[in-house]
Amino acid sequence: MKLTVKEIADIVGGSIIGKTDTIITGVSGIKEAKEGEITFIANNKYRPLLKSTKASAVIVPMDINNTVEASLIQVENPSLAFAKIVSLVGPEPITFNPGIDKTAIIGKNVILGKNVSIQPYTVIEDNTEIGDGSIIGACVYIGHYTKIGKDCLIYPHVIIRERIKIGNRVIIHPGTVIGGDGFGFATVKGVHHKIPQIGTVEIGDDVEIGSNVTIDRARFDKTYIGNGVKIDNLVQIAHNVYIGENTIVVAQVGISGSTVIGKNVIIAGQAGIIGHITVGDNSIIGGKAGVTKDVPPNVHVTGFPAREKWEDMRIQAYSRRNPELVERIKRLEEKIDKMEKKIQEMYGEEPEDN
Amino acid sequence: MKLTVKEIADIVGGSIIGKTDTIITGVSGIKEAKEGEITFIANNKYRPLLKSTKASAVIVPMDINNTVEASLIQVENPSLAFAKIVSLVGPEPITFNPGIDKTAIIGKNVILGKNVSIQPYTVIEDNTEIGDGSIIGACVYIGHYTKIGKDCLIYPHVIIRERIKIGNRVIIHPGTVIGGDGFGFATVKGVHHKIPQIGTVEIGDDVEIGSNVTIDRARFDKTYIGNGVKIDNLVQIAHNVYIGENTIVVAQVGISGSTVIGKNVIIAGQAGIIGHITVGDNSIIGGKAGVTKDVPPNVHVTGFPAREKWEDMRIQAYSRRNPELVERIKRLEEKIDKMEKKIQEMYGEEPEDN
Amino acid sequence: MKLTVKEIADIVGGSIIGKTDTIITGVSGIKEAKEGEITFIANNKYRPLLKSTKASAVIVPMDINNTVEASLIQVENPSLAFAKIVSLVGPEPITFNPGIDKTAIIGKNVILGKNVSIQPYTVIEDNTEIGDGSIIGACVYIGHYTKIGKDCLIYPHVIIRERIKIGNRVIIHPGTVIGGDGFGFATVKGVHHKIPQIGTVEIGDDVEIGSNVTIDRARFDKTYIGNGVKIDNLVQIAHNVYIGENTIVVAQVGISGSTVIGKNVIIAGQAGIIGHITVGDNSIIGGKAGVTKDVPPNVHVTGFPAREKWEDMRIQAYSRRNPELVERIKRLEEKIDKMEKKIQEMYGEEPEDN
Repeated sequence: MKLTVKEIADIVGGSIIGKTDTIITGVSGIKEAKEGEITFIANNKYRPLLKSTKASAVIVPMDINNTVEASLIQVENPSLAFAKIVSLVGPEPITFNPGIDKTAIIGKNVILGKNVSIQPYTVIEDNTEIGDGSIIGACVYIGHYTKIGKDCLIYPHVIIRERIKIGNRVIIHPGTVIGGDGFGFATVKGVHHKIPQIGTVEIGDDVEIGSNVTIDRARFDKTYIGNGVKIDNLVQIAHNVYIGENTIVVAQVGISGSTVIGKNVIIAGQAGIIGHITVGDNSIIGGKAGVTKDVPPNVHVTGFPAREKWEDMRIQAYSRRNPELVERIKRLEEKIDKMEKKIQEMYGEEPEDN
Repeated sequence: MKLTVKEIADIVGGSIIGKTDTIITGVSGIKEAKEGEITFIANNKYRPLLKSTKASAVIVPMDINNTVEASLIQVENPSLAFAKIVSLVGPEPITFNPGIDKTAIIGKNVILGKNVSIQPYTVIEDNTEIGDGSIIGACVYIGHYTKIGKDCLIYPHVIIRERIKIGNRVIIHPGTVIGGDGFGFATVKGVHHKIPQIGTVEIGDDVEIGSNVTIDRARFDKTYIGNGVKIDNLVQIAHNVYIGENTIVVAQVGISGSTVIGKNVIIAGQAGIIGHITVGDNSIIGGKAGVTKDVPPNVHVTGFPAREKWEDMRIQAYSRRNPELVERIKRLEEKIDKMEKKIQEMYGEEPEDN
Repeated sequence: MKLTVKEIADIVGGSIIGKTDTIITGVSGIKEAKEGEITFIANNKYRPLLKSTKASAVIVPMDINNTVEASLIQVENPSLAFAKIVSLVGPEPITFNPGIDKTAIIGKNVILGKNVSIQPYTVIEDNTEIGDGSIIGACVYIGHYTKIGKDCLIYPHVIIRERIKIGNRVIIHPGTVIGGDGFGFATVKGVHHKIPQIGTVEIGDDVEIGSNVTIDRARFDKTYIGNGVKIDNLVQIAHNVYIGENTIVVAQVGISGSTVIGKNVIIAGQAGIIGHITVGDNSIIGGKAGVTKDVPPNVHVTGFPAREKWEDMRIQAYSRRNPELVERIKRLEEKIDKMEKKIQEMYGEEPEDN
């Protein structure tokens, strides 16, 4: 689809600086963009590229107002505005028609909504339910009694075990496993006896889960992922974890059993959080942090063991001064030795044996 | 199934404090339990909930003997006792009937034991062997010459490559890959040439392996997982690793090539262990630890580089004192400056040039 | 196949020390080798085993020249030489005949090269292309418009989404996901709106990718993996990452969005690299390192935050001295107290109030 700069500005509610009638035929990043394409600036790091970009139009934040070769479209949130335009002038999306592939295996007592698409070699066990408009990709496995909401997009090779409940508009990327057994054993004389994991997983609305993620089922009751939570690739979420609304969990994070994460928390990549603790609303856990105790709401913790960021940075900064401290102590010791000798001379004493 | 408190106490060999004839119809966690349900206390953290729980019965350790609303059943190991009861009054388990689904593809010279269940779209290559009572889930791949023992439970989408040997009563969760090539290259002038990985993987009896785990085949000989080992999700086990009996490997741990792990070791989440070293029996590797050299038996190491826990904690504690040390050194320097001046005054000397 | 020591030495271009006519019937590691087998030494750690090995021949580096029971074959690169021999006298490799299994589902406008093998239950969507001699394992998913080059080996259960481009002689191990959506959201009032990820992934020639890896598609343009790159298991590569030729990425590494990695870099296990930075050619990132800023070419960084190795080791070494420093400061304080008192005595002053 082709749009003029004016049409695009109208769609995103932005103000134009520069030419309004240029025709836009594609979208791209600011470095790669060619003539006829639109791009955007969200990260300040890329502002200097505004002068050199080949793009014909750039969606920018309100405070960019210089005149450059490209037409600028000022908006409050360039990322969001650009996303809207991408769906209009980007590459044609891959779609899957409603209908059940003849190779899909559908169990007994399965309730399928309207316009559901079930792709080849998918296995759907007995007593499951899939809501209107959901797309279940190829080679997906859906276990007994599991319920999936409306307008979900379950990519190929997702495995969802029995008795799981998934909300509406949930996206799950390939290879992810929902509802594997929690990791629990009772150890008697060194031998580990399996503890049955009879709970489930409940996933709210508008959740997105990356590729090759593992979310374990609860020992009892449920592991819970709140509405609007976004989970990146290769994340581990253990049994009975609770994650509040709109929390972000970046790649390779691990959250141990029974830990409660608040709303609007950000957990950066490769962080680990031990079990049975609470992380408060709106807190930020730094990348690679190792969280070993409760985190209050609204704080930013980093490092291992995780501490408030200012404290962690202070410890880091001081640790870099250690070589200097050793030097200073050595000098003090030398000076004191000399002074002691002088004082002894004055007093005429023998050195003390410390 | 319904059981009275008395019947449950008999099954787990426990002593009752309180009413014995209450009928129990379900199991739950101590926070979520409702009337008619039984729960348990293993973690001391949850003891205060004993007064507020709605459960009708609670399995407790021997040292809990107060009288509360719920009936108490005292046992040595509450987790283990509760697990027994869960299998009796918990939700009906999902079972898979013996038999080979008509869509399963079974190669030549395959030996299948009695009562084997092979689910849809599973591919079993030539010259394989599967023992009595094993369940092979949907969309599993089992490579040539691989042998799987009796009463195993292989969940959907597990991939087991050729020439692997798996013991009896082994549980493997979805998405796990057993026998991928070890990561080995011979680098000549910057170009990496693949080193053939012609060994195998051997897994003992009673092993449980989580979801999306990777266990690589050996360069030659075998990667070995001993009897009773329990491995959590997203763990990486490299070629030629040896893991002794009953060792526990928590989520997202990585063990590098040719490392030998003893018996009854615990490796906590996100720890990493370099290659070609030995970790002794009964040792504990802390969460996120980075182990860079041999660990003797019976020690607890933490941190990165991993040290014995007391030493790591001491270094951590002292590093927090750095700001204080800098202050103390500064004061010493000031005092010494003053003292030097006084001594000079007494002596009538010029200041030394240090 | 059977070969004499002489024949093997000729194949690898090596010099023999010892008997030349011994017949070799198998390959093995130096510890496990039995009579009639050949082994090798690359890691110096294993040199002492040369005296005790049961192997009949050992491929060794040029500087090993002692006479032992086994015949020695001296070469420049024992690993590489041994790899050649393994393919001749090792176990018979598993092969897959060309042809399309009758259960494979091939879409419209698919171009298949000569001698392609497509195994059972694989789904290949419309408008894809697969080059001569490539083997596509069982239960693989290949999305629309994706192109795979010649002589590739795609193991079972690999998922490659739409519009991906893969070079020649690429090996991808089971469970790996190529082209999942990048993790990008525009957050407005705490709600995260998905940013379309309309770019692709491009993978060069001679790349090897381990099991359960995730390589996300770009927001726009492409995520790029250069020729000869080798990636181990469970690695996360985010959207728009660029990896230069012959770089090695060890297990469980995470590379965040838009980061550029140079050529011939080594990134050791569990390292994490933040987004939007550059790592120069030939650099080494240590195991578990957390890289938070640009790394110049040809340096070795370790630790978290990652610093040049010598600096990181220095800080580590000094941090171990903290307990000693505290002791030394305490002694200095005591001495100064005493000296102050003496000086006061001499002067007849009152103590200062510091």
